[in-house]
Amino acid sequence: MNLSEHMMQLALQAKSAAHELAQLTTAEKNACLVAMAAALEQNRPAILAANAQDMNAGAQSGLSTAMLDRLKLDDKRIEAMARGLREVAALPDPVGRVLDERVRPNGLKLQKVATPIGVIVIIFESRPNVTADAAGLCLKSGNATILRGGKEAMHSNQAIAGVMLAAARQTLPAFPAGAIQVVPTPDRQAIRELLALTQYVDLCIPRGGESLIRAVAECSKVPVIKHYKGVCHVFVDRAADLDMAEAIVLNAKLQRPAVCNAMETLLVDQTIAPGFLTRLAPKLLAKNVELRADDAARRSLPADDARVKPATDQDWYNEYNDCIMNVRVVDGVAGAIDHINHFGSAHTDSIVTADETAARKFLSQVDSAAVFWNASTRFTDGGEFGMGAEIGISTDKIGARGPMGLEELTTYKWLGFGHGQVRQ
Amino acid sequence: MNLSEHMMQLALQAKSAAHELAQLTTAEKNACLVAMAAALEQNRPAILAANAQDMNAGAQSGLSTAMLDRLKLDDKRIEAMARGLREVAALPDPVGRVLDERVRPNGLKLQKVATPIGVIVIIFESRPNVTADAAGLCLKSGNATILRGGKEAMHSNQAIAGVMLAAARQTLPAFPAGAIQVVPTPDRQAIRELLALTQYVDLCIPRGGESLIRAVAECSKVPVIKHYKGVCHVFVDRAADLDMAEAIVLNAKLQRPAVCNAMETLLVDQTIAPGFLTRLAPKLLAKNVELRADDAARRSLPADDARVKPATDQDWYNEYNDCIMNVRVVDGVAGAIDHINHFGSAHTDSIVTADETAARKFLSQVDSAAVFWNASTRFTDGGEFGMGAEIGISTDKIGARGPMGLEELTTYKWLGFGHGQVRQ
Repeated sequence: MNLSEHMMQLALQAKSAAHELAQLTTAEKNACLVAMAAALEQNRPAILAANAQDMNAGAQSGLSTAMLDRLKLDDKRIEAMARGLREVAALPDPVGRVLDERVRPNGLKLQKVATPIGVIVIIFESRPNVTADAAGLCLKSGNATILRGGKEAMHSNQAIAGVMLAAARQTLPAFPAGAIQVVPTPDRQAIRELLALTQYVDLCIPRGGESLIRAVAECSKVPVIKHYKGVCHVFVDRAADLDMAEAIVLNAKLQRPAVCNAMETLLVDQTIAPGFLTRLAPKLLAKNVELRADDAARRSLPADDARVKPATDQDWYNEYNDCIMNVRVVDGVAGAIDHINHFGSAHTDSIVTADETAARKFLSQVDSAAVFWNASTRFTDGGEFGMGAEIGISTDKIGARGPMGLEELTTYKWLGFGHGQVRQ
Repeated sequence: MNLSEHMMQLALQAKSAAHELAQLTTAEKNACLVAMAAALEQNRPAILAANAQDMNAGAQSGLSTAMLDRLKLDDKRIEAMARGLREVAALPDPVGRVLDERVRPNGLKLQKVATPIGVIVIIFESRPNVTADAAGLCLKSGNATILRGGKEAMHSNQAIAGVMLAAARQTLPAFPAGAIQVVPTPDRQAIRELLALTQYVDLCIPRGGESLIRAVAECSKVPVIKHYKGVCHVFVDRAADLDMAEAIVLNAKLQRPAVCNAMETLLVDQTIAPGFLTRLAPKLLAKNVELRADDAARRSLPADDARVKPATDQDWYNEYNDCIMNVRVVDGVAGAIDHINHFGSAHTDSIVTADETAARKFLSQVDSAAVFWNASTRFTDGGEFGMGAEIGISTDKIGARGPMGLEELTTYKWLGFGHGQVRQ
């Protein structure tokens, strides 16, 4: 079987599985998830052995320490995967929700009902725990999933998926084998083949660096919901409570700098910039944050500190995921909105102000998935939104926007209940 | 300016207009729509003159009578466009609806609010009225639209869009010129260029024949919501009320055969096929319907009638849009579901039965945008669903499924209202 036939077979099996998964009851899905969690714990030695294979190959091929750390599994990480599956089991079933209901004048009753999407291809990078997280969310939402992780994690991913599938089939003998599949080759052409099969694959969700996502979006013929970078902003308005602003900026940048909802750029209204930046800078520098600032901002920042640098035009687009941030002085809320809509990534942006008019303008005109008033950008997260686990944060507008939890992994159909209605 | 720069300019203007449209009040949008309707009526001579240019060119280039009829505008059709705009003005504003609201334990209030999508490219074929209908729906939903109709309707489309834009700008001097634009060239490369501008264009909706839609989906880098063909089925179950079944089949096929929600294939349970087909056939043949039937069905159809033909495998995939239909005998509801999920186009399918178990199975397992029990397939339509006007019927699963009215032309954002919350 050549690659093209192989991908076709994978997709066909997934489609057939999707039809069966859509019919499982909530209890059946939950029983499978709980059994999968237990099986991950019970099969720890086998999973760790597969991971050791990947780690050895990775070390030999010269993966960086950071990459090896992301690749590594240990007892704690396996526990976390199992806990994640149990949490998904405990969440409400997103399938079957009645989203709308109406009775037409002719007596035809219409119901808009949430259904699984079908077959979802998930492409991710080196962390093997995504296999368990994504497969669990897809199962609960009734979707078949085809997983394609980093090639360096292939053995780990296959071991995890294999353990999960075996556990589900032991719990529910009719559980379809095509429900959770791992693309068994590192060949990049496999993705290209898979994402051309529009008759079987309903959606692709790429997670990872921008270049991965762009490459997937570029080649895919199936719909893609992109989870691009998070170039998040905090705008400190002239009417901000400066204590609140300081707390929000420090939290947004420093509480966990490596994640997509961390702040990358601070925008400050020109009328308060000197005072605010003068008090803020020492606190950021004390945490060893590099500040890339425009000319106006640098007038209020220590001139003799090597960590204060002029910002380049490119810097405004950067997702640093690190202890680096941009600082720019803007002319009021309109200037902040223009900057964000131009340089931002439509992820999360926040205004700090006591002025409701300014806040409403910002909330309305910033064209991002999440826009906050007087809160840290760090709250854009499925858990913090009360959705439970999430598959990622969509920066797209079609299909899902912002955190993608279980509900965002469903679509809908219209059911019509008649008693012989015909159209006049 | 070359084509590529030209398309970039169009898209940039549309994006800038989209930001302004998103801020218009409902009253402002409605005033523009009503003024546009009046302007279409007042500028009838200019519109008819532009249309006459297209009609002359079309006749000279040998367009078919059917094509020329679709292209032709007259007083009645201009009235219909104006009426359509007034109806859209009267519909509720889909922007700003609060779709979800929650207060988190830390006091952060989250609102999921409907917003415009942004810039929508609409590609359609020869009917110039689509220009008015699509531009009206996009304006009411706060979206900028770039229209690309058939090249044979270019003058008509530009005249209609020009009249609408001028009326809006007279009503509201700040109305952005980029809100409604017509691609001013028949060059197919223009579409390719436009649909590569992912930073400006948010969505493409192609409407028309299958080959047009496939070509657009194939080349687009922006999300596409496809409105493919309607291969709709009626399944007459063994427990059907045969009078009701007959009425539904005749309505679904004959009330308006040329539209996408007309039935193309009749599926009949084997236990009742002989009786049902024997009574149904004369009524279809009396309306001169051609019947392409499988062997089992032909045993119950007149053998000597030239309009009864054996169905080929390809026939089951056909959207005839004409007085032709397929007939197949299947083994119960499971057989019907398998046929529909294999050969159908995920548009609309209906079961006729008095057996609730069979109906529930059909509603649940048929993977189509609309699935009806004891009703004609002809009801899948924005107006019949109570949505008002629609831009089309999506056979996709991501973004919108089924009739796309005003609400389906919006996306959402998450607003967060805090008082200084930071993440722990």
